[in-house]
Amino acid sequence: MTGEPNTSPAGFPATSKPAVVLLSGGLDSTTVLAVAKRDGYTPFAMTFRYGQRHSVEIDAARRVAQAMGVAKHVVVDIDLRQWGGSALTADVDVPKDRDVDHAVDEIPVTYVPARNTIFMSFALAWAEVLGADAIFIGVNALDYSGYPDCRPEYVAAFETMANLATAAGVQGTHRLRIHAPLQHLTKAQIVALGHDLGVDYSITTSCYDPAPDGTACGHCDACQLRLRGFAEAGARDPIAYAD
Amino acid sequence: MTGEPNTSPAGFPATSKPAVVLLSGGLDSTTVLAVAKRDGYTPFAMTFRYGQRHSVEIDAARRVAQAMGVAKHVVVDIDLRQWGGSALTADVDVPKDRDVDHAVDEIPVTYVPARNTIFMSFALAWAEVLGADAIFIGVNALDYSGYPDCRPEYVAAFETMANLATAAGVQGTHRLRIHAPLQHLTKAQIVALGHDLGVDYSITTSCYDPAPDGTACGHCDACQLRLRGFAEAGARDPIAYAD
Repeated sequence: MTGEPNTSPAGFPATSKPAVVLLSGGLDSTTVLAVAKRDGYTPFAMTFRYGQRHSVEIDAARRVAQAMGVAKHVVVDIDLRQWGGSALTADVDVPKDRDVDHAVDEIPVTYVPARNTIFMSFALAWAEVLGADAIFIGVNALDYSGYPDCRPEYVAAFETMANLATAAGVQGTHRLRIHAPLQHLTKAQIVALGHDLGVDYSITTSCYDPAPDGTACGHCDACQLRLRGFAEAGARDPIAYAD
Repeated sequence: MTGEPNTSPAGFPATSKPAVVLLSGGLDSTTVLAVAKRDGYTPFAMTFRYGQRHSVEIDAARRVAQAMGVAKHVVVDIDLRQWGGSALTADVDVPKDRDVDHAVDEIPVTYVPARNTIFMSFALAWAEVLGADAIFIGVNALDYSGYPDCRPEYVAAFETMANLATAAGVQGTHRLRIHAPLQHLTKAQIVALGHDLGVDYSITTSCYDPAPDGTACGHCDACQLRLRGFAEAGARDPIAYAD
């Protein structure tokens, strides 16, 4: 894990409200970071480097953290690949031009078992250390592309568990909340919200299968949902696509 | 993470019952592994290498996994140290000769935020890949030494969350159970159970602060609880202590 202090490397004022924000560098998590700032939180951004992620995404997360002035940005290395004989270890082709509207009952091959649970568990550890009572995550139930760990009932159950897991929970000093402000928004509504909050989407990336120079493929589920979101919001997506 | 196949490197028969067993190489988790085997599970053992752990403990986990014939043993590297400014990063002295009977309302400095949540999240990922419907963990509410994430209500909440997190949960193919068979046992009862199941405790270690050669200190909370457990079970602890 590497720590990258940005605007406030030495910490934050005791009067501020620290929050851990899970940041992938994509459209959703970047919008969530803007929401956390709007709501008066001092954001501490956490990004994961794991088997299936491209350095393109890590680079985007670093750009976003820098541009949006987080108090601290950590990149946590986790290894989800070397599990014996599983989809996690396989070189799975990212599906292209899939019908994303009719895919919600199907778990896609890009699904990583327990990924959000692992991410939020690390966020919980950092939140406890910071004395933060908020974790922000960009899960989204409408355009969720079939992932079980993006549903509202999952997020609520994680919150319940988290409040039983920590010293703060036991001592009753504060209650942790998992904020999922995009939960019930369409991609178009997310884009509109981000524009209202002044988000610069040109530094983000969402593609599951980018070219080495970072150019998005335009055909994976994430690209399709993102492009449609911009179109429906009547806006232009400022990033580069392969075609 | 390194994979170390033991008795059945290529997998397990489709008719067996795979279970992920969290294995530290200590008295509790070794007993839990024996319980999983007694109950007919094919154990897949998972050990974590993190900042505060000694290689002595990893070595013990490897010995136990080997001796007890798990299907596979993985050692997962996670970094819990480099969080900015926290008890996680500090070189904290392990408390010695503490009154463990009157320490349960106090969170000890050896507490690692969200540790069991992180461990069980990785176990959940592996369980989903294996199609396992069981995770075994050696938490213990009686001799729990003040850790919030060892309590029964915490374990139950994790199980509820886990069943909402996974593809298997969503598809309703099976329900995952978190087995905590030591939950309501005293250390003496754990030792007695292990002896009934033929556990060789000479290859385990429990000490928070072992000497480089692996000799247990005899004075930390873990040593005190372990030694008293053996004494109350009328048994001799076969490992070496510093005095």
